Amino acid sequence: MSPINLAIVGVGKIVRDQHLPSIAKNADFKLVATASRHGTVEGINSYTTIEAMLDAEPSIDAVSLCMPPQYRYEAAYKALAAGKHVFLEKPPGATLSEVADLEALAAKQGASLFASWHSRYAPGVEAAKAFLGSTTIKSVHVIWKEDVRHWHPNQDWIWQAGGLGVFDPGINALSIVTHILPRLFITGAVLEFPENRDAPIAADIHFRDADGLPVHAEFDWRQTGKQSWDIVAETAAGQMVLAEGGAKLSIDGTLTFAEPEQEYPSLYRRFAEIVKAGTSDVDLAPLRHVADAFMLGKRKFVEAFHD
Amino acid sequence: MSPINLAIVGVGKIVRDQHLPSIAKNADFKLVATASRHGTVEGINSYTTIEAMLDAEPSIDAVSLCMPPQYRYEAAYKALAAGKHVFLEKPPGATLSEVADLEALAAKQGASLFASWHSRYAPGVEAAKAFLGSTTIKSVHVIWKEDVRHWHPNQDWIWQAGGLGVFDPGINALSIVTHILPRLFITGAVLEFPENRDAPIAADIHFRDADGLPVHAEFDWRQTGKQSWDIVAETAAGQMVLAEGGAKLSIDGTLTFAEPEQEYPSLYRRFAEIVKAGTSDVDLAPLRHVADAFMLGKRKFVEAFHD
Repeated sequence: MSPINLAIVGVGKIVRDQHLPSIAKNADFKLVATASRHGTVEGINSYTTIEAMLDAEPSIDAVSLCMPPQYRYEAAYKALAAGKHVFLEKPPGATLSEVADLEALAAKQGASLFASWHSRYAPGVEAAKAFLGSTTIKSVHVIWKEDVRHWHPNQDWIWQAGGLGVFDPGINALSIVTHILPRLFITGAVLEFPENRDAPIAADIHFRDADGLPVHAEFDWRQTGKQSWDIVAETAAGQMVLAEGGAKLSIDGTLTFAEPEQEYPSLYRRFAEIVKAGTSDVDLAPLRHVADAFMLGKRKFVEAFHD
Repeated sequence: MSPINLAIVGVGKIVRDQHLPSIAKNADFKLVATASRHGTVEGINSYTTIEAMLDAEPSIDAVSLCMPPQYRYEAAYKALAAGKHVFLEKPPGATLSEVADLEALAAKQGASLFASWHSRYAPGVEAAKAFLGSTTIKSVHVIWKEDVRHWHPNQDWIWQAGGLGVFDPGINALSIVTHILPRLFITGAVLEFPENRDAPIAADIHFRDADGLPVHAEFDWRQTGKQSWDIVAETAAGQMVLAEGGAKLSIDGTLTFAEPEQEYPSLYRRFAEIVKAGTSDVDLAPLRHVADAFMLGKRKFVEAFHD
């Protein structure tokens, strides 16, 4: 089978850091074009709009959309309408309803739509899921605390309404949690908004499942020093710690699983798999929890944030 | 076929005004019990909790849940787990995720779950849908403005986080809009919160569909004098006005449809239909738009509200 001719839309930091190296190592894909207002990739045909790119490069089979979520629907719609397969960076859109619309369009067009959740492919996630399925869980504590000035310097879009604020990293935690504990729902939340911003800088969320399992998540963007991306479960078989964003799994104090991180290579393997199978992979549960948190949560105002 | 033995949980204003008269006129149902902290129905066995009611009245086939949405999941779960059919007042829950969980439980139990949207059964809605499907729509304007002091006097739950504020009536408009224009998504919203409340008193929302159709919705709870529950569409065949919450339909200035309101009788006919057919009817689109509005919307603070 000849490789899938791929184009990237929105060439920024995540594309250089993750997408390009993963595509280069995957024989199923050949990068043939990019579209971006400013960014380009050396040696690859570049355009400033997706329309110009799709017009000029009929050989494109699939596109990866990596621009901010507020602008993703329009590009995804154009690509699907042209019969292209679509890889959506996380989060898959600015609203649940627009992604549901894209899913219907993909089905109609016979194209594959992939709503990617990179943290689900962290090395320890499947082992954590298997462990939790083998025991009785008493409680779960999710701690996702990082320094926004370090990870998102001067990224204004992330602070705008629809940019999700601290849920931009928090949705990574939720993409793991919804995979290992699929039947949760939120019972209460407090969202902290800097008084000069339209998106929250911190969130404290309580979930439960049908059996009453308590799950408490703390997302905070004001963490300096040690960063925390941990999921801790108290179980009948001891304490489970899925640490460093899913990279390391410890059970009862013993490190049981630690492998090199391969998240984006895994995403592209999955994308190739659904393109070949003619299916889509769109799980909206992580974004649905974010929407539920905004709908159900109390708003609290905290001091202004300046980059 | 013998009637469906029905119980009501949460006996308040909407039950007395709408549910009881509708049930009394429908031979498919027989009211056999109620559960409510304070309310009772004369001549009907009453309990203060759903657990006590389900224990004492094994003949119950179905329950209508009419308490505030923040408390609905727990009762729905218990009823479905006991194999009962469930009618959910609108909105069907406090979060999208909990309703998705109930839907899965109903399927597993072979019970019928009905997420009811009473405004969809307003007399002019189907005629409006048929008219819009027969022409080209240029724009749509939704105006839902009422006096909260008149319609929801001293209802504290409606102002709490999760109580939805002005979206409590607004979701009625959205339940009609999503029925007559099914493929919309929100592109921007401003939510106005009284500085002393956790739920919005007004919302200004812009939607579009895949073809770019602009839809503008204004929800406001500060309207005194004439109340507005209108959907106005500019079309190639003239202006369509679906007025008074769906009761009256005018096209190009001519009243074409006006029948007596039969919303709750229609809901109970639909509930009987899905119970007999062994199916469920759970459309989350109206609540999904509300969650999207909270997630995407800008927050604006306005003067305090006192009942």
